[in-house]
Amino acid sequence: MKICQVEKTLVATSRIGQLGTRRLLVVRERGSSSKQVAVDPVGCKEGDWVIIVGSSAARTAAGSNDYPSDFTIVGIIDYWDDDSESGRK
Amino acid sequence: MKICQVEKTLVATSRIGQLGTRRLLVVRERGSSSKQVAVDPVGCKEGDWVIIVGSSAARTAAGSNDYPSDFTIVGIIDYWDDDSESGRK
Amino acid sequence: MKICQVEKTLVATSRIGQLGTRRLLVVRERGSSSKQVAVDPVGCKEGDWVIIVGSSAARTAAGSNDYPSDFTIVGIIDYWDDDSESGRK
Amino acid sequence: MKICQVEKTLVATSRIGQLGTRRLLVVRERGSSSKQVAVDPVGCKEGDWVIIVGSSAARTAAGSNDYPSDFTIVGIIDYWDDDSESGRK
Amino acid sequence: MKICQVEKTLVATSRIGQLGTRRLLVVRERGSSSKQVAVDPVGCKEGDWVIIVGSSAARTAAGSNDYPSDFTIVGIIDYWDDDSESGRK
Repeated sequence: MKICQVEKTLVATSRIGQLGTRRLLVVRERGSSSKQVAVDPVGCKEGDWVIIVGSSAARTAAGSNDYPSDFTIVGIIDYWDDDSESGRK
Repeated sequence: MKICQVEKTLVATSRIGQLGTRRLLVVRERGSSSKQVAVDPVGCKEGDWVIIVGSSAARTAAGSNDYPSDFTIVGIIDYWDDDSESGRK
Repeated sequence: MKICQVEKTLVATSRIGQLGTRRLLVVRERGSSSKQVAVDPVGCKEGDWVIIVGSSAARTAAGSNDYPSDFTIVGIIDYWDDDSESGRK
Repeated sequence: MKICQVEKTLVATSRIGQLGTRRLLVVRERGSSSKQVAVDPVGCKEGDWVIIVGSSAARTAAGSNDYPSDFTIVGIIDYWDDDSESGRK
Repeated sequence: MKICQVEKTLVATSRIGQLGTRRLLVVRERGSSSKQVAVDPVGCKEGDWVIIVGSSAARTAAGSNDYPSDFTIVGIIDYWDDDSESGRK
């Protein structure tokens, strides 16, 4: 699972039906400027450091094997002292 | 899920039967010069910023577990102010 | 799906039974010097630009869910003007 | 499978129910500063070099196809003399 | 599928039961210093250039859908003249 920080909510009105109205978040992977979109079944807020599961497990974690997610938040890290933070751009 | 921008339609006349006549798009991943091909069940136009699902979820998102996609568009982002845009090549 | 160019046929006499006698091709990913091996159910020739599916969809695309492929050609691109070509090594 | 070194236990009190109370470890991939989170069904201690399976096999390795893991420790390496160690940061 | 060279056998006495006593090999990906661990159902020796399948197909290739592998050798390449070899480190 990846360690990411939540940046903001993403609005996508035109979407396939299977996505439903689930909340989508823009997240940034630790030590990188790479941004991805994650499904949030936990209830995160901006700035939270989270654990995100990918691969086929992201479907189960989103609540159903038919849910079209490849990146789902599975937990909020209690405390993360990110030693790479000063060096990121 | 990845954040990508739609570049153009891709024409591939010789293809396996399972691909059907689905529309294929060339997309560029945010902050990268990497291009990939995505299936479009949403109906995008050139320049749209989109959310794309990979892994096994791309099959479900394309409409069937037997559809041979590993990269399927699931939504169009309403507004994307890409801060990495000026730096890309 | 990835955009790759076909380089040559790969000969591997010692192989697991599930691979069968399917033709294996060495392909190079667009804009990269990275080479991989793809299963070819379409019938490509050297120099062709092709669309290749990965993940679990590569098994279905190869003709059976039991076929051990993670990279299967699904179509030949009619025309590809590769703007990254001059810069590759 | 990846070769990683165990760094520490990760505490995430807010988590989805499917994760259960399984122990989560922060691991660093060999020759890289990249850190990920792995499920540990083996019982590792800090500093151990381990083999970690990803993809859909990580679910089975964690004990159930419904377990939402994409990175599960499957073994502890008896002895690892990491020749890349001096060069890492 | 990836093109890799076999380096050596890996010994991991503490392992999950599903791994069984299958032989595990350290392999290096072509043109890279990255090392991974692969399951070997073919019978390779040190120095062999091999084809390795990842993703969910690695389970089938290892002999069973329940086998926890994400990287399984499926064939030995008869002859590989690696043009990137001189430049690797």
